Amino acid sequence: MDSAAGTNEKVGFNSWCPFLISDSIQKLKEFAQKIKKIGKDDPRRVFHSLKVGLALTLISIFYYINPLFHGLGTSTMWAVLTVVVVMEYTVGGTLSKGLNRAFATLLAGALGLGAHHLAALAGDKGEPILLGVFVFMLAAMATFSRFVPEIKARYDYGVTIFILTFSLVAVSSYRVEELIKLAHQRLSTVAIGVATCLCTSMFVFPVWAGEDLHMLVAANLDKLACFLEGMGVEYFGEKMESGSLEGKSFLQSYKTVLNSKATEDSLANFARWEPGHGRFGFRHPWNQYLKIGAVTRTCACSIEALNAYISTLQQSHQTTTDLEFKQKVQAACAEMSKETGKALVELATSIREMKWSSTAGKHLAMATEAACRVKALVPTENSTLLEVLVSATTASLLTEVVRCTNPIIAAVEELSRLAEFKWPEHGRKAGAVKPIASAESPPQVVIVIEK
Amino acid sequence: MDSAAGTNEKVGFNSWCPFLISDSIQKLKEFAQKIKKIGKDDPRRVFHSLKVGLALTLISIFYYINPLFHGLGTSTMWAVLTVVVVMEYTVGGTLSKGLNRAFATLLAGALGLGAHHLAALAGDKGEPILLGVFVFMLAAMATFSRFVPEIKARYDYGVTIFILTFSLVAVSSYRVEELIKLAHQRLSTVAIGVATCLCTSMFVFPVWAGEDLHMLVAANLDKLACFLEGMGVEYFGEKMESGSLEGKSFLQSYKTVLNSKATEDSLANFARWEPGHGRFGFRHPWNQYLKIGAVTRTCACSIEALNAYISTLQQSHQTTTDLEFKQKVQAACAEMSKETGKALVELATSIREMKWSSTAGKHLAMATEAACRVKALVPTENSTLLEVLVSATTASLLTEVVRCTNPIIAAVEELSRLAEFKWPEHGRKAGAVKPIASAESPPQVVIVIEK
Repeated sequence: MDSAAGTNEKVGFNSWCPFLISDSIQKLKEFAQKIKKIGKDDPRRVFHSLKVGLALTLISIFYYINPLFHGLGTSTMWAVLTVVVVMEYTVGGTLSKGLNRAFATLLAGALGLGAHHLAALAGDKGEPILLGVFVFMLAAMATFSRFVPEIKARYDYGVTIFILTFSLVAVSSYRVEELIKLAHQRLSTVAIGVATCLCTSMFVFPVWAGEDLHMLVAANLDKLACFLEGMGVEYFGEKMESGSLEGKSFLQSYKTVLNSKATEDSLANFARWEPGHGRFGFRHPWNQYLKIGAVTRTCACSIEALNAYISTLQQSHQTTTDLEFKQKVQAACAEMSKETGKALVELATSIREMKWSSTAGKHLAMATEAACRVKALVPTENSTLLEVLVSATTASLLTEVVRCTNPIIAAVEELSRLAEFKWPEHGRKAGAVKPIASAESPPQVVIVIEK
Repeated sequence: MDSAAGTNEKVGFNSWCPFLISDSIQKLKEFAQKIKKIGKDDPRRVFHSLKVGLALTLISIFYYINPLFHGLGTSTMWAVLTVVVVMEYTVGGTLSKGLNRAFATLLAGALGLGAHHLAALAGDKGEPILLGVFVFMLAAMATFSRFVPEIKARYDYGVTIFILTFSLVAVSSYRVEELIKLAHQRLSTVAIGVATCLCTSMFVFPVWAGEDLHMLVAANLDKLACFLEGMGVEYFGEKMESGSLEGKSFLQSYKTVLNSKATEDSLANFARWEPGHGRFGFRHPWNQYLKIGAVTRTCACSIEALNAYISTLQQSHQTTTDLEFKQKVQAACAEMSKETGKALVELATSIREMKWSSTAGKHLAMATEAACRVKALVPTENSTLLEVLVSATTASLLTEVVRCTNPIIAAVEELSRLAEFKWPEHGRKAGAVKPIASAESPPQVVIVIEK
């Protein structure tokens, strides 16, 4: 965007117009390709879009050609509104919203009728005041309840609909008999809308949140395995630091795992609303997937630390004096990396096929054995060297933390320029910060490299 | 819940009732305390609840006592509905939803009128079919557009309202003249609703998403600093491993930083809709906060790895033979830890006060110096030891990854039991997996401890 605008400024007004058109066509093409990719990545998205169209058309046509509902503008509206708002990508999402909507409408409608009745006793003058007080109190209390995490997670939409329906019923200036008739109409249209959504959602190419969660957790394990196996071959393996690791795709895939918590939480929340389907029973232990997700993220964090350390090492271009000890450690590292990778692949397969296999444990045992072998490389009588190793590792890890602080300083400094923070008088001139804050000099803070 | 149900089963039916009551009272008390805590943690939540009540009461009373609107049930409804649905916690959220709603209603209303006009040309029989086709196509296309990340992030609500309004207008069986009158009414009520929300949101105790993001990013830096400074004193400091670190609060606070991405993204998204306010201009560089957030999380990951390594070391209860080298490294570590902590506190203060200070860089320079001092502790002519250190650190980090895989295996194994995965015939009996998969034996896989 910015570069295009810059170019436009330079060319004259006459050549401006065709330029703009070809630019727009280019952008449209890119957008079309993006759209195509989104559809190709997960064809269920296309099906979902068609399903929403189908549900809406069904309910529209039904009401349009049914002479009973001609003129009942309001009621028609509620069915259409329900379909548009309730229809979600996953069955669990639709169920959660649909049930929330139905029960909240029912409960708030009944309460609203009661409030209306009560306020009517206060006479013509007192009625609007009393109704105002009711609406204020209920809206405030219900809104506050949305800050309770449990309510927020499961009943947020229900609370909105509760406030909405209560206010509508309490405010409407109909007589009570008319209200009951209206409430009946509204409830039945909401029910028809919810039923239409559920049928379309569950019986036409259903997307189950539970199955998505199941697959996501397994895929995340695979991503970690991909990194470890790639490392085992490319870095610790025979080629041993021969080439740069930059640009290798296996180095990046695990990064999405670090931010997967929100997706997992919402899928698990929807999955709880779903009935049993396929391989998943009604009381399938969805919480356990969240636990697996949490430990997977901890592991991804360790991998991130390892990856950061290794890429720092690679930048320092240390010379290798062929050392037997180093080769032995390297070989053990290759085995640890590969075997842990295999263990994770095994676990992912075990989840995907829902078939427990003890092979993962065996692979990890071999990785553990390799780790012990490294320990055994240090002669046991030499306590000094052992202590050196412990201290050095802690120091290296801490150094890694120090190194990670560099980009933070750089990012905050950039913010301070962009957002025009106050700068001290001498600060701008001295430029004393840059050499430390800049990302170009990480080798400075690495302790165990270059003599 | 589960434990309570379990207890109830054991006691007889006679003693069941009073037990249930006292149990309920206890739970109610706990819930009340929870509610109180939520309000105390952030009093703005209470204000927000009152604000929603206020906005709703205003709009309700306005319509209730204004004789112009008596009987116009539908139009009243749209204003109330708009207030309930559009009112969000932050100004940016309210603005984003309000503008989305207003523009989507306008656009879809116009398109719907056009569709209605076009379909009317097809005659009585063709009209519902053509309208059905229009609704299907637009709903499907609009739904698909929600899968585009940029649209999802900013205009998701607008697309919903677009589909809704288009369907409503297209489906309603009024004549076109009536439709225009209705559209006018509906638009003006929506506008009144949005205006009420915006006024309440912006002028009564406003909560700015931008300011929240600003504070969140600074608070996250503080949390990392809290860990590092705590470590510098409690673990690397004078007391030096004297006591267990378990139960120290500073060890936990950084963990929330790891999962802060979703919150930051949504706050930044809302902040972009907000007008300039207080210290923040209209084009404040909100994206830069996301960049700071990203590098902060990378740093948090390193801290997580360090924390995991240290807690493994502590569990192994190694005996300290007072070694001069070790003490020196320990002292350097204390300095690295404390100085990095100070640098982060400085950065947080710098963000909070919007005043750049180069002190952070100086603190980090001292931490870097300490890191170099550790390097210098190793005699430079001894290249062997240096290589040992590099290899050992890599191996230790990798060992950490291996160790992290243990809980994953344990978690998947638990899932396989809970979800009744298939087990191989011999698998259950052998129990060969447990000793490796259990979390009780982490010292097994740590290489650089215990001789």
